[in-house]
Amino acid sequence: MTPSNAPATATEDRLYVLTGTCPSVLGSVELVTGFLFQRRCYVTELQTFDDTEGKQFYIRAEFRPMDDIDIEVVRNEFAEAASRYDMTWQIRDSRRPTRCLIMVSKYDHCLQDLLHRYQTGHLNIDIAAIVSNHPDLQGLAAWHGIPYYHLPISAETKARQEAQVWHLIEQTGAELVVLARYMQVLSEDMCSKLHGKAINIHHSLLPGFKGARPYHQAWEKGVKLVGATAHYVSEDLDEGPIISQGVEAVDHSFTPEKLANKGRDIERLTLAKAVKLHSEHRVFLTGNRTVVFAGHN
Amino acid sequence: MTPSNAPATATEDRLYVLTGTCPSVLGSVELVTGFLFQRRCYVTELQTFDDTEGKQFYIRAEFRPMDDIDIEVVRNEFAEAASRYDMTWQIRDSRRPTRCLIMVSKYDHCLQDLLHRYQTGHLNIDIAAIVSNHPDLQGLAAWHGIPYYHLPISAETKARQEAQVWHLIEQTGAELVVLARYMQVLSEDMCSKLHGKAINIHHSLLPGFKGARPYHQAWEKGVKLVGATAHYVSEDLDEGPIISQGVEAVDHSFTPEKLANKGRDIERLTLAKAVKLHSEHRVFLTGNRTVVFAGHN
Amino acid sequence: MTPSNAPATATEDRLYVLTGTCPSVLGSVELVTGFLFQRRCYVTELQTFDDTEGKQFYIRAEFRPMDDIDIEVVRNEFAEAASRYDMTWQIRDSRRPTRCLIMVSKYDHCLQDLLHRYQTGHLNIDIAAIVSNHPDLQGLAAWHGIPYYHLPISAETKARQEAQVWHLIEQTGAELVVLARYMQVLSEDMCSKLHGKAINIHHSLLPGFKGARPYHQAWEKGVKLVGATAHYVSEDLDEGPIISQGVEAVDHSFTPEKLANKGRDIERLTLAKAVKLHSEHRVFLTGNRTVVFAGHN
Amino acid sequence: MTPSNAPATATEDRLYVLTGTCPSVLGSVELVTGFLFQRRCYVTELQTFDDTEGKQFYIRAEFRPMDDIDIEVVRNEFAEAASRYDMTWQIRDSRRPTRCLIMVSKYDHCLQDLLHRYQTGHLNIDIAAIVSNHPDLQGLAAWHGIPYYHLPISAETKARQEAQVWHLIEQTGAELVVLARYMQVLSEDMCSKLHGKAINIHHSLLPGFKGARPYHQAWEKGVKLVGATAHYVSEDLDEGPIISQGVEAVDHSFTPEKLANKGRDIERLTLAKAVKLHSEHRVFLTGNRTVVFAGHN
Repeated sequence: MTPSNAPATATEDRLYVLTGTCPSVLGSVELVTGFLFQRRCYVTELQTFDDTEGKQFYIRAEFRPMDDIDIEVVRNEFAEAASRYDMTWQIRDSRRPTRCLIMVSKYDHCLQDLLHRYQTGHLNIDIAAIVSNHPDLQGLAAWHGIPYYHLPISAETKARQEAQVWHLIEQTGAELVVLARYMQVLSEDMCSKLHGKAINIHHSLLPGFKGARPYHQAWEKGVKLVGATAHYVSEDLDEGPIISQGVEAVDHSFTPEKLANKGRDIERLTLAKAVKLHSEHRVFLTGNRTVVFAGHN
Repeated sequence: MTPSNAPATATEDRLYVLTGTCPSVLGSVELVTGFLFQRRCYVTELQTFDDTEGKQFYIRAEFRPMDDIDIEVVRNEFAEAASRYDMTWQIRDSRRPTRCLIMVSKYDHCLQDLLHRYQTGHLNIDIAAIVSNHPDLQGLAAWHGIPYYHLPISAETKARQEAQVWHLIEQTGAELVVLARYMQVLSEDMCSKLHGKAINIHHSLLPGFKGARPYHQAWEKGVKLVGATAHYVSEDLDEGPIISQGVEAVDHSFTPEKLANKGRDIERLTLAKAVKLHSEHRVFLTGNRTVVFAGHN
Repeated sequence: MTPSNAPATATEDRLYVLTGTCPSVLGSVELVTGFLFQRRCYVTELQTFDDTEGKQFYIRAEFRPMDDIDIEVVRNEFAEAASRYDMTWQIRDSRRPTRCLIMVSKYDHCLQDLLHRYQTGHLNIDIAAIVSNHPDLQGLAAWHGIPYYHLPISAETKARQEAQVWHLIEQTGAELVVLARYMQVLSEDMCSKLHGKAINIHHSLLPGFKGARPYHQAWEKGVKLVGATAHYVSEDLDEGPIISQGVEAVDHSFTPEKLANKGRDIERLTLAKAVKLHSEHRVFLTGNRTVVFAGHN
Repeated sequence: MTPSNAPATATEDRLYVLTGTCPSVLGSVELVTGFLFQRRCYVTELQTFDDTEGKQFYIRAEFRPMDDIDIEVVRNEFAEAASRYDMTWQIRDSRRPTRCLIMVSKYDHCLQDLLHRYQTGHLNIDIAAIVSNHPDLQGLAAWHGIPYYHLPISAETKARQEAQVWHLIEQTGAELVVLARYMQVLSEDMCSKLHGKAINIHHSLLPGFKGARPYHQAWEKGVKLVGATAHYVSEDLDEGPIISQGVEAVDHSFTPEKLANKGRDIERLTLAKAVKLHSEHRVFLTGNRTVVFAGHN
């Protein structure tokens, strides 16, 4: 084992990210770092978490191959090593944008924010389509040159509408569905199909004010903080695994309307943060919790 | 109306604070400022809030009399003026410490913090007594030279214990009761007697995790923020009018124990902030809400 | 003095803001509040500051006339009262947007942010023109339908270019000049003409890293915080009276490039905040300092 | 390579921390993780940083030996492996407190804070002695049972006083010197001897207000933020490598005295944070910068 020569000689334009989780045992780190070393892959970023409560290990490694290797071969080789540790893992091209489908209703603040970050390169995503149960935001989508599907929904048509949405997801190859203030409850079946692949923004911290007009409820309680929660969609409405939360101070002078305005600001930022973390493969979903390896930006 | 000469000539050592609230009508500000001007009282700090939802007006004015006046006479004169506006008000000596009785169980973090701020002059309070249903913190009280009353409680003795506490409150002339992690629920009668005069610290934002072991619940939900709420005690347990709230970011690496540690830090700061605001007469209790005129420190 | 009936009957659509400052003397508050009461103007927001160091008093009052009065008459009447207290003051229509001229070079992040807030109604301004010493941002201006003046500058043409800018300011009636990353130093004469009417954004806290490449300097020092400062332009370059400052945590992993990115984010927010405060008439310029009455949003 | 059995069987009471830095080359991670795996050491926490500017790699690994090994043997073995990568490293007992000597003058706020955290177990340090050029804080030291050395200093006695301090450092085996508002400049010789082993707290962000009465200078500039910087002592006074920085918002109502109070609060927290990071072996000193692997508490 003598030091090979450094990243200067690496193939600068290729960057992969390996994420994995397995039971906490001696060797779990070495499984990954030893493997990458043997394949002459230079580790540029490494994060691990050893969950002492759940006795589960998590790892995320960004790496750059020194040689011109075939990543499929690497995947196959790693599969064998990982199976001995019972590791669930993925190796992804770090530069490839995550393909998204965004669902909205009438509010545009979250959509506007996502579009802005997408266009300015702050989010490594690719927006395949925007779906709404209302026609209102069609113009905005058109302006950004993104296909807009107006799929109205009612109690009677819910099953059919969801089938249409699902068809679109398959057709566009969307890897992530972002509910950017989509004011409809997904069916249990849809939630189940989208497990770990759909992010929702909730207008409150969790646990929060349930039911209608949450900002009026917050006003009535005279809260001194308001917040929002981005989470994976689960069958348990508004109670899925939390990815990110935001909060800001308010005072008595905030009317319900001002609270809602402030809340929308927090929603925008919190949802964008969750989408960013997910698209950088920094989020592990584990039961009703997440492990999130924060990045630096 | 010619300008009198300035605060330089004022009686520097006297400072009062007038707090008042009345329906929103033309003249509500002038009621206070005009009155103070006529009595040659120099306004050093002034805050108002016009609640457009509740159509209620709030004012807080700190003032220094230019002349050697009798504050009782001022109070009597203002009473007459205020009655025409239906104003509820108080004029207090700004420098007089608020007399407190602190109730604790076994946790000492909030008590320690209050004692430290009290001793270093950061809280303008006077701690008349510490009451606990456990003997554990007796030594701490003794070290600070503060009378400690160990009043155990059980389902059978609850009424009698509360009577003892109430007797102590009356005997010491305590104006404020601080529940600094007192792990007992006060009776409805006691809550009612202490309306607006007792502050509790709740180990969560509101609405929060109900029931036992809130930090374990928070851990199970994988929260990314934890917080605490200081509020006036009301019959509705842990749901009284909020005075202050604190929050901090956490991540997946926080075990329930680490969450609880972080939570205790927030509890300390949030309770101390509420006690400070109350003792500086900056909090108006109005129904289930508060109006809080923040100070600068 | 009997309470008149309340804001419900007020002329809802008219709102004014009175700002004033005078030496600290008994009656300075009453000067304003008494006057407004006599003219049947309902005070909706009131802030005062008594500067004990400089013995100077500051007041800001938003008010709504109950009757259909002529604001010019009000101004004339107040002028007489104010003169007795040596008060410098203004009464402005609170709803009228502040007319701005924005100056930029090549960086667009601050301009983009201002345009976005302007369009979504978050800034009560009116952008009369954009001036740049480069042609780069012409398209952006065109897209927003705002006149763009490309006025190149060199050592030789500086005086003439500034004369053109000044002409534009006069011609457009601009009340505020915003230097949104305008990378030129204004002449002493121009600074003097724009005293209190031009806001600059500085890429650092003050005192900060002087000279070229401040983010490289920050990186070399290994700072753990980066910030930005918005200030009124003064002859003392980058050292004018501070209106707002922003700051964020960074760590060792921030390269100079990442520091600059983070810095640009802070610049955007800090400049927008300063423009908002100024346009809401919340900033008093006093020597080399400012008094800023924060709003709630 | 088959998975051994998990941390459950590990010797729970032993925990070590390996810190190392070497040029960025392929294999630098594996050097550490491979070595620990071979010695059956379970990695409980792992952080790395690849400095692309300086082409330098940093690693910190906490580990628990599965077997009853001799750590001296481990050190010797690792020395050989590390030398091939030019790695500078240390393996320390994670549980052993860092032996400190604290230097103060008259201000007690930082000392009080350190003593409080030390006593409540929040800082894994051991305070061997307190040194001051004034007698004022003797009582405080006595109360905590810590030896207090009053070593006055003047221009004439400076060399001799520093010799006494150095003698104390050697005698007590102090590994870290904390300048907790010690208002004397250390000589170049002393700075050089204490390179990387002395932490100072500076009453400002860096670059900051130089010279006397910094809070008066801050007041005169009308700053909207105040901060403090904890850094390693270097010959360049107040300009050593930064470990932590703190900041808080202020406004026009902060007199120089209030600014100083707020500043002292920030100083306390910022210094305590730096001492904590250092004592947990989370800080790498590299030229005029630091790499700091944050912990979670």
